Amino acid sequence: MSDSLFTKIINREIPADILYENDYVIAFLDINPNSPGHSLVVPKVEAEDILSSSDESLLEVMKVVKKIAPTIVESVGAQGFNLIANTKPAAGQVVMHTHFHIIPRFENDGLKHWPHIESTSEQRADLAKQIVEKL
Amino acid sequence: MSDSLFTKIINREIPADILYENDYVIAFLDINPNSPGHSLVVPKVEAEDILSSSDESLLEVMKVVKKIAPTIVESVGAQGFNLIANTKPAAGQVVMHTHFHIIPRFENDGLKHWPHIESTSEQRADLAKQIVEKL
Repeated sequence: MSDSLFTKIINREIPADILYENDYVIAFLDINPNSPGHSLVVPKVEAEDILSSSDESLLEVMKVVKKIAPTIVESVGAQGFNLIANTKPAAGQVVMHTHFHIIPRFENDGLKHWPHIESTSEQRADLAKQIVEKL
Repeated sequence: MSDSLFTKIINREIPADILYENDYVIAFLDINPNSPGHSLVVPKVEAEDILSSSDESLLEVMKVVKKIAPTIVESVGAQGFNLIANTKPAAGQVVMHTHFHIIPRFENDGLKHWPHIESTSEQRADLAKQIVEKL
């Protein structure tokens, strides 16, 4: 397998606006942001998505999110952020190397959350039963 | 502080369609889903958001996401999922007790991702410098 785009950033073969780096994780600005300060937090060990990343990788990502997100949010004058890991192409994952988006959010910034679907208590109870049986 | 809605679910004071539970984490179907199988994964130790949850809590959440998300996705016939933690009201956080959404996604389900903003390499370099100086 050839190196992912993010591994090339880690290896300094491709430039990026790096915010933070340690032995386990690198964080840099998204080149195609949804809001000012939109950043990516990436475990250095290459894995396709969060399902195949190790627990240790994900823990180190969470530590870095807690460390850098408040500073990112403050630096752009935002009031919050969404932490998002799109998993599989159907969910909008483009680079197949585990990454979490930090998307700073502003009051009334117009970024719309998805609509709700109809869901009855019977439907949910049936579905929960199916899932629990398979776990 | 009175117990959060999610603590009331953990304490069985409010019903929920529980999918999985261990000493650290509970997972249940979202009562107001964006897609079939939309679930919440919640650390039992009450904290306002991911910034105030312990590393241990977040690690245990990640372990449970890896354990249950594939079964949820399979059970509803989806092809992927978004893992999302909305942090602070400006980001759409409604219940002030740390939780991650697992939102199953289907090819061409019409759920739109947010538009991109204009961002020059100079703007990103300036912003990265500001953030790095504050970290």
